[in-house]
Amino acid sequence: MIKITFPDNSVKEYKEGINGLELAKDISSSLANEVVAISVNNEIRDITRPINNDAAIKLHKFDDPEGKHAFWHSSAHLMAEALEQIYPGIKFGIGPSVENGFYYDVDPGDGKVITEDALPKIEKKMYELSGQNSKFIRKEISKKEALDYYKKKGDEYKLELINELEDGEISLYTHGKFTDLCRGPHLPDTGPIKAIKLLNIAGAYWRGDEKRKQLTRIYGITFPKKKMLDDYLVMLEQAKARDHRKLGKELELFTFSPKVGQGLPLWLPKGTALRETLENFLKKVQKEHGYLPVITPHIAQKELYVTSGHYEKYGVDSFRPISTPAEGEEFLLKPMNCPHHCEIYKRKPRSYKDLPLRIAEFGAVYRYEQSGELHGLTRVRGFTIDDSHIFCRPDQVKEEFLKVIDIILYIFRTLNFKDFTTQVSLRDPNDKDKYIGTDENWEKAEKAIIEATEEKGLEKTIELGEAAFYGPKLDFIVKDVIGRKWQLGTIQVDYNLPDRFEMEYIGSDDQKHRPVMIHRAPFGSMERFVAVLIEHTAGKFPLWLAPDQVVILPISEKFNDYAEKVLNFLNNYDIRTLIDSRNEKIGKKIRDNEIKKIPYLLIVGEKEVTNNTVSVRKRGEGDKGTMKLEDFVVSLNKELEEHLN
Amino acid sequence: MIKITFPDNSVKEYKEGINGLELAKDISSSLANEVVAISVNNEIRDITRPINNDAAIKLHKFDDPEGKHAFWHSSAHLMAEALEQIYPGIKFGIGPSVENGFYYDVDPGDGKVITEDALPKIEKKMYELSGQNSKFIRKEISKKEALDYYKKKGDEYKLELINELEDGEISLYTHGKFTDLCRGPHLPDTGPIKAIKLLNIAGAYWRGDEKRKQLTRIYGITFPKKKMLDDYLVMLEQAKARDHRKLGKELELFTFSPKVGQGLPLWLPKGTALRETLENFLKKVQKEHGYLPVITPHIAQKELYVTSGHYEKYGVDSFRPISTPAEGEEFLLKPMNCPHHCEIYKRKPRSYKDLPLRIAEFGAVYRYEQSGELHGLTRVRGFTIDDSHIFCRPDQVKEEFLKVIDIILYIFRTLNFKDFTTQVSLRDPNDKDKYIGTDENWEKAEKAIIEATEEKGLEKTIELGEAAFYGPKLDFIVKDVIGRKWQLGTIQVDYNLPDRFEMEYIGSDDQKHRPVMIHRAPFGSMERFVAVLIEHTAGKFPLWLAPDQVVILPISEKFNDYAEKVLNFLNNYDIRTLIDSRNEKIGKKIRDNEIKKIPYLLIVGEKEVTNNTVSVRKRGEGDKGTMKLEDFVVSLNKELEEHLN
Repeated sequence: MIKITFPDNSVKEYKEGINGLELAKDISSSLANEVVAISVNNEIRDITRPINNDAAIKLHKFDDPEGKHAFWHSSAHLMAEALEQIYPGIKFGIGPSVENGFYYDVDPGDGKVITEDALPKIEKKMYELSGQNSKFIRKEISKKEALDYYKKKGDEYKLELINELEDGEISLYTHGKFTDLCRGPHLPDTGPIKAIKLLNIAGAYWRGDEKRKQLTRIYGITFPKKKMLDDYLVMLEQAKARDHRKLGKELELFTFSPKVGQGLPLWLPKGTALRETLENFLKKVQKEHGYLPVITPHIAQKELYVTSGHYEKYGVDSFRPISTPAEGEEFLLKPMNCPHHCEIYKRKPRSYKDLPLRIAEFGAVYRYEQSGELHGLTRVRGFTIDDSHIFCRPDQVKEEFLKVIDIILYIFRTLNFKDFTTQVSLRDPNDKDKYIGTDENWEKAEKAIIEATEEKGLEKTIELGEAAFYGPKLDFIVKDVIGRKWQLGTIQVDYNLPDRFEMEYIGSDDQKHRPVMIHRAPFGSMERFVAVLIEHTAGKFPLWLAPDQVVILPISEKFNDYAEKVLNFLNNYDIRTLIDSRNEKIGKKIRDNEIKKIPYLLIVGEKEVTNNTVSVRKRGEGDKGTMKLEDFVVSLNKELEEHLN
Repeated sequence: MIKITFPDNSVKEYKEGINGLELAKDISSSLANEVVAISVNNEIRDITRPINNDAAIKLHKFDDPEGKHAFWHSSAHLMAEALEQIYPGIKFGIGPSVENGFYYDVDPGDGKVITEDALPKIEKKMYELSGQNSKFIRKEISKKEALDYYKKKGDEYKLELINELEDGEISLYTHGKFTDLCRGPHLPDTGPIKAIKLLNIAGAYWRGDEKRKQLTRIYGITFPKKKMLDDYLVMLEQAKARDHRKLGKELELFTFSPKVGQGLPLWLPKGTALRETLENFLKKVQKEHGYLPVITPHIAQKELYVTSGHYEKYGVDSFRPISTPAEGEEFLLKPMNCPHHCEIYKRKPRSYKDLPLRIAEFGAVYRYEQSGELHGLTRVRGFTIDDSHIFCRPDQVKEEFLKVIDIILYIFRTLNFKDFTTQVSLRDPNDKDKYIGTDENWEKAEKAIIEATEEKGLEKTIELGEAAFYGPKLDFIVKDVIGRKWQLGTIQVDYNLPDRFEMEYIGSDDQKHRPVMIHRAPFGSMERFVAVLIEHTAGKFPLWLAPDQVVILPISEKFNDYAEKVLNFLNNYDIRTLIDSRNEKIGKKIRDNEIKKIPYLLIVGEKEVTNNTVSVRKRGEGDKGTMKLEDFVVSLNKELEEHLN
C-alpha cells in the first residue's frame, strides 16, 4: 500500500500502481470524466501512469493550466498524426502547448508548402482521428533506441533534439499510427478532443535561429466541448477588433519607428494626453496618501546595480553597459527604479518618526527583450513604471498594505475593472532557508498581507512557495470585458534591498533598525496598462480619460465662427475640444468622428447659432437633443464627477 | 596710406603703421583713456601694435569681453612677475584669462608650497609692480630662440608648449623683469591694473592629465577701478549665499549620489514639486498656443543619429553606444530630442493645412561631460529640455517667432526676470557657402526674425556670422538680481534636419515642399533653469512656485488637532501646506521655518482655535496679524492670480 496525500492535506492509502484516473473515480465518477492530468509531487503526469510510492497529488481538469497543457499537448500530437497522413514524409520539429492552444513546427519536405487553405482539410482529418479514441501509450527508451528510431524514420530535427538529451530520460508517446519524442503528459486517449480549430500558419526558424531552416508553424486550439470553442472564437474576434496595436494606430495614440528602434513606443499627442490624464489621476491619489514624488536619471553607474544585485542577476541579458569616452566609467540603462530610490532613502539619517517614507516616480526603465518577443505596448524594451517604494517599520507593513489596496481598488472602480481576484504569494514553509529575512519578519509580513486582504474582503488564493526569495507579495488579477485575465497591480515586500544598501533608521529605542521596503505599482507600467485599457474599452475611453472629449461639427463653413466660440467656451472649462471644420457633408463628419470614438459630437447650424445652443450626440447613445451651452457643460461636469467618485 | 574701416562701416585713411591707441586718440582722448585692445580683421591685438595694411577694426574697452581678455591676461603676467620675485626659480605652466579674472598654473619647485596665506603678500607685490607702469613689449622670435631662452631659464613646461608650436608664430612678451611665452594681446603697460584681488588656490594637473604633475593654480581678478572690484566682491559674496548647490541642499531640492554617478541629479520631493509646477505652467501656456505633447524614448538606434548627423558630429565625445546581448543592435542615449520628433513628423504624409505642427516634450537627454566640467545643476550629464520643434512653411516663420517670443516674455514676466536683451545671430554675408539652405529661405528667415524682434520692441544686438550653419537664431540673455548674465531661451531656425530626414508636405499647389524646422526651449533645461531661479530668488520662490507654500505652527501640542483642521482646509484649495508639530518652543519653530523660506507661517494657539483664525507671518514682511481662515485663503488666491497674470 502507498500513502496518497490530497491537496486538502488528507491522506488515504491505496494499492501500489494506482493511477490518477482511478484516484478520480474513487472520489466521484463526474470528476473522473473531467480529469485530464495529475501532479505527482509537483511533477505533472499522465493520469494513466501508475503511482508506485507515497506521493502528494493534485488532479487537474481542463480548467486548470496544467489540464490545458496536457489537453493541448495531446492535440498537437493529434495534429501531427493528421499531417503525417495527409503529407507522407513530413518531418517534425517541436510541438508544444502554448498559452492559448498549441502549435507544431513542421517541414513538409523540399518544394512542398502548407498554406492556410489546407487548414480545413487538416482539421477534418483531426476530427476523424480523434473519433477513433486512440490511446496515448508512453514508452521509456534508451538514447540509442530513440536515435535508431528517428534515423530509420529520417527525421533530422528529432535526431538533433535527442542528441541533446540525457540517456535514461527519453520517452516516446504513440497514439494511433503516430509516434513522437515526448516527455508528456497526455490524455488517456484522443476522445476528449471534441472541438478543433486550426488558427493560422507562420514561418519559424528551426531553434529560433535565423541562420537555420525556416519551418512551417501551424497554430491550433481545441476544447472538450463545442460550446467552449464557439465562445473562444467569438472572444478571438472581439479581441481582434480590440487589439491595442490596431486601435493605437487608428486613434493615433502611439507609433513605432524602425529608426528609433523596435519595442520603443513613441507616444503621439492623443496617447500622451491619455497617459498624462492617467498619471495625473494617480499623482493626485498618491498625494492624498502622502507619497513624495521624485525624479531620478535613466542611467546609473554599474556599481549601483552591483550593490543592488541586479547586475549579477540580469547583467548579461540586459542592454550592455555604456562606457565613457574618457575617465573609464561604466553606466547602465536603468532596468528598475528601486536602487535610485534606495539612494534617496540613504542620503540622510532617518528616524522612526520619518517612516513610512513613500517615494514615488513615474520612472522610465529599459530592459532588453528579443525582437521576436516584442508585442505592441504589452511587451516593449522601454516602459514607464508607476513606481513607488515605501520604506517602513516592520510594524507598519499591514497599514501600508491596506492603504495601497485602497488605491488599487479605487483605480479598478474608476476604470470599471469589476471582475478581479488576488493572489497572495507566501514562503514555502518546508524550505525556509531559500528566503532572505528573519522568520519573525516573514511571519509578521505574511500575516499582515493576509489580514489586509481579509479586512478589505478581497477574493484571494494563497500560493505557498510562490513568494520571491526576498519577500511575500500580493497580486491583483483582472478579467477584462471579453474574459481575458491580466495581472495588474502588485504589492511586494522586500527584505533584500534594505540589507544590500545597509539601510537604517533610529528607532524609539535609540537603536539602529533596518526598514522594510515595499514595492508597488498599481498600473504596472503605463504602456501595458494603456494597452489593457484600450482592449478593455475597445478604445471607447471614459469621458474623463478620452484624449478628445468633444468635437464640434459645423453644418457648413458659415457656422465655423460659432464653432470657434463654442470651442473657447469649452476650453475655459478645460474640456478637451476639437472642431471638424472640413468642407464635408454633416453626415460624413458625424460618421468620421464616430469612428474616432469621441464621447460627444456637437452639431451646430443656423438654429444653434440663433439660440446659443448645441445639438448633442453621445457616443453609443446617439442624438440627445438640443441643449444650451451652459447646460451641456453642467451635464458634462456631472458625468466627469461621477466617474471619479 | 592705409584704409581703416570702423564698425559703423565708415572708412578713413591713416598713415601706415598707425596703432589702435593712436586711432582712439584721433576719435577722442576719453576713448584713448579707456581702450585696452583692438580687433584687426577680427583678430584681437595689442593697441600699440602697428597696423600696416587696410583693415576693418574695432576698439575694445574693459567693458567688452575682448577688453577684459586683454586686461586679465596682462594681469596674469603681472601676477607671474610678482611670483617670480617672491619665489625665485618658480616655473610657469599656462596663465589664461577666464570668464571672471585669470589664473596661472605654477610649480614653485620641489618641496615648496604656496598656500592661501601667501595671497595678500603676492597681491601687495602686484600693486607695487603695477605702479611701475612697465610697458608690455612684444617680440616675435624663432622657435630655436624660444627654446634656447627657456632651456637657459630651465622651465620644462614652457619648453613642452613651444615644442608643439609652429616656427614663425611664436612671440614673447616682456614687462618689467618678467618675460613670458605668449601670443597676446596685452595692455600697453601695467598702469591701468588699479584694483587687484587674488581669490583662491587649487590643484591642477599639468595639461589636465591626472598622470602628470599637479601644479598650483592661483586665481585672481583685477579691475581698472577700485569701485568695480568692491562691487564685484560684494556680488561674489551674494553669489555665494545664493549658490544653488548650497541652497539646493539646504532646501532639500536635489541631491547627487556617487553610486548613481556624477552630474546626474536626483530630484528630491521639494525640488520635484518645484519642477513640476514649472512644467505644468509651461504645459498650460503651450497648450493655449497649440503645442502637441509627445513622449519619446531615451534611447534610439545609432542609425537615427547617423541620419540626423549627430553621430558624425558628436559621436566620439558622447556616451558610447549601447549594444545588445543578441541581434547585434546598437543604441545611443538620446543627446537631443529633435531626431525623435522628426520621426513623428514623418510617420504620415503632411499637408500645408497641417502646418505649423508644434511637437513638444519635456525630454530628458544625456551628454557626456568630463567630471571636472560638472557644476551643480548648471553643468550636468543628464538634463530635461523643455523642448519643442515647430514644423512650418517658410511663410510661417515670422508668425511662429512672434508666438514663441510671446511665450518667453510671459515666462520672464511671471518669474520676475526684468532685465534682458536679445541677440540675433545671422549668416556671415561674405561667406554664404558655409551655410545650408537656399538664399531665399535665409533672407526670408533673417528678415522674419528681425521684424519679429522689432514688432515686440525687444532690445537686441545683431551678430553677423554667429548663425549656426543650419539656420539663424534668436537668443535671450537675462541679467539676474546680482547682475550676472544667463543665456535663457533660444529660438533656432533649422534647414538641415528637414533635408537630412527628407521631410515633406504637400503644398496648396499639390507639389511636394520641404518644411522649415524651428527648435525652441524657453527654459533651456529644467536643471539649468531651476539653478538660475534658485540663484535669482536666493531660494525665496514666489508663492505659486514654492514647494511648500504654508507651514502651520501650533504653539503647543494641544493645538495639533486644530492645525490638522487648518491643513485639511488649505489642502482642499490645493495649497501646499505642512504642519510643524515638533515639541519645540514657538520661537524656535518660527526661526527654523523662516530658514526654509516658506512664504507663509501660520501660528495657531488658544485664541486662534476659539475664533477659527490663524496668525499670519509672511516671508520678508513679518507679522501680518490674525485672519479668518477663509480670508487667508482669499488673500492667498489673490496673490497667486497676480503672479500668474
